[in-house]
Amino acid sequence: MSVIRPVILSGGSGTRLWPLSTRARPKQFADLIPGGPSLFQATISRLAGVPGTAPPIVVTGADHLGLVRAEAATSGVEPMVVIVEPMGRNTAPAVAAAALLADSEDVLVILPSDHLIGDTGAFQDGVGTAVGHALSGSIVAFGITPTRAETGYGYIETGDSVGDGWQVARFKEKPAVEEAGEMMSDGRHLWNSGMFVAMAGALIDEMAATCPAILEGVRGAVPTSTEGLAVLGPSFATVEAISFDHAVMERTGRAVVIPLDVGWDDIGSYQALMGLTAKDGEGNAVSGTVILENVTGSFIHATTRTVAVAGMSDVIVVEAADGVLVVSLSEAQRVKDLAERAQKQG
Amino acid sequence: MSVIRPVILSGGSGTRLWPLSTRARPKQFADLIPGGPSLFQATISRLAGVPGTAPPIVVTGADHLGLVRAEAATSGVEPMVVIVEPMGRNTAPAVAAAALLADSEDVLVILPSDHLIGDTGAFQDGVGTAVGHALSGSIVAFGITPTRAETGYGYIETGDSVGDGWQVARFKEKPAVEEAGEMMSDGRHLWNSGMFVAMAGALIDEMAATCPAILEGVRGAVPTSTEGLAVLGPSFATVEAISFDHAVMERTGRAVVIPLDVGWDDIGSYQALMGLTAKDGEGNAVSGTVILENVTGSFIHATTRTVAVAGMSDVIVVEAADGVLVVSLSEAQRVKDLAERAQKQG
Repeated sequence: MSVIRPVILSGGSGTRLWPLSTRARPKQFADLIPGGPSLFQATISRLAGVPGTAPPIVVTGADHLGLVRAEAATSGVEPMVVIVEPMGRNTAPAVAAAALLADSEDVLVILPSDHLIGDTGAFQDGVGTAVGHALSGSIVAFGITPTRAETGYGYIETGDSVGDGWQVARFKEKPAVEEAGEMMSDGRHLWNSGMFVAMAGALIDEMAATCPAILEGVRGAVPTSTEGLAVLGPSFATVEAISFDHAVMERTGRAVVIPLDVGWDDIGSYQALMGLTAKDGEGNAVSGTVILENVTGSFIHATTRTVAVAGMSDVIVVEAADGVLVVSLSEAQRVKDLAERAQKQG
Repeated sequence: MSVIRPVILSGGSGTRLWPLSTRARPKQFADLIPGGPSLFQATISRLAGVPGTAPPIVVTGADHLGLVRAEAATSGVEPMVVIVEPMGRNTAPAVAAAALLADSEDVLVILPSDHLIGDTGAFQDGVGTAVGHALSGSIVAFGITPTRAETGYGYIETGDSVGDGWQVARFKEKPAVEEAGEMMSDGRHLWNSGMFVAMAGALIDEMAATCPAILEGVRGAVPTSTEGLAVLGPSFATVEAISFDHAVMERTGRAVVIPLDVGWDDIGSYQALMGLTAKDGEGNAVSGTVILENVTGSFIHATTRTVAVAGMSDVIVVEAADGVLVVSLSEAQRVKDLAERAQKQG
């Protein structure tokens, strides 16, 4: 009998939220919203209690195995297996490894761990719908109704309707501003959330058709016996690094997209994180030991020390173990570059 | 025979340079100019090698005795005695204690330790001149030629000339802007540097005349025997807390002022500190591990962590063990208040 098998993808370095997010503690493990669970904890708990849900598979890097185990334990979730990649090869090989270690009847719910879902109930309902499609052989993508002309996401164009969703007409890369504006308003495009649902056996069949070299490469790296831990072999290095979208979804005829309205956010920047944080009367999002005088519209986050700010508007100030960031909101796109330079020096 | 006896006053909390300067490590011990000596070290070494100069007397608080000893040792200077105040009572009681523990023939050169002197040679020449006046019974103040309409300093009005200096007509409190402008340009006013030169015996005589209760109060708190360390007794708490300027200089008829042109600066603010620090091509004064993108006219100081700043102009960013400060240069006067709030919370 089929079970729902969450597959938690926990790679990534998350430089755009440095110094909260670092190589050693990427975004999904970072203390982004003080007092709340990490994004990883929220993700691994997201299907807890849903009938028919089995222990998850987690895919992570060797550097983060300790964090995965600690946070899984904190969440009270014991993974079926933690797959350790010796190096990141993007999502297609990670999904292949999970599909090969799952039972072929398992319905895999593939979840990046660095996204926020505001409405867990609506998400679980959406998974229920997707599982129905998956049991009849579809590979289901979750699409998010666009709320802005976002140029940082991929889009999915909907085709003929199928039950509560649509066949996928095509996947589109991150667009230019103009095209993003059109896609936001034409009613035929959804953001690609990076979450997918499919039976393991169907995934393997489809990868054998769309990206056989990847499937066989991963098969050669998967250990024959696992005891809750599957460290992929060094041959994993030779597998093509490519996303699941490119390797499978864009090539398959079985793709279906289901709309999700669940308060999804990938928290890809400090502006996004600020948007999710409560503000004081001056429009400041503040956490930790912070002293402000004449500060407005700013994001101030103190982790371990007192942070005192005066006479500033529309700035991001973040103090964390790895460093201190001070950047105007209007230049927040520089954070990624600053973080790369900081981590190179560090 | 008389010797020159430096008296180093090392009290104060220095909130205006928080978090570089803190209660635990006030300004004179802080790492203000990376790679340079602390202000205390510079002060205790300032008369080293001048013929006739004897080991100094240092007056400090119990919290800072360890720092005084460590930095005196680093400077290669062994104090005659370190006077430990159980609590700060401003400078008049501190000077009285030093005068009582010195030989009455000693010429005391009273030096706050939280000022910068750029030109040591010129300073030593000035001390030579002052010692001449002191040996004939005068109490000598060093006056700094004003270079701006500073409202943060006290002023000394010059009277009749005496040798290389003047009799003091009067001391003036920190003025309003307009008066400061007049005093800067009228050629009859000098900044009060807080540095004084006088024979110990003359000082004691003068205090007996101008502030006898203070003198006797301090006498009752000075230990009868010292071995390089004189911890003042608890009765010191009952001595009036008052500055040497108010208690003695404003009341004595023996006051003389000598002009000093020695690159003096009390580094009373981050603007002042920034003025003393080398700039890069964008006008930034930078120290420590700092990463900048599109930053101009700013003071960025990293102590223990990487500090990354982007898209800012005319800001102060200071990272130190006690906290992080981010403030626009135009509102730097708020630092004192921020520091007091931070230290209250800490």
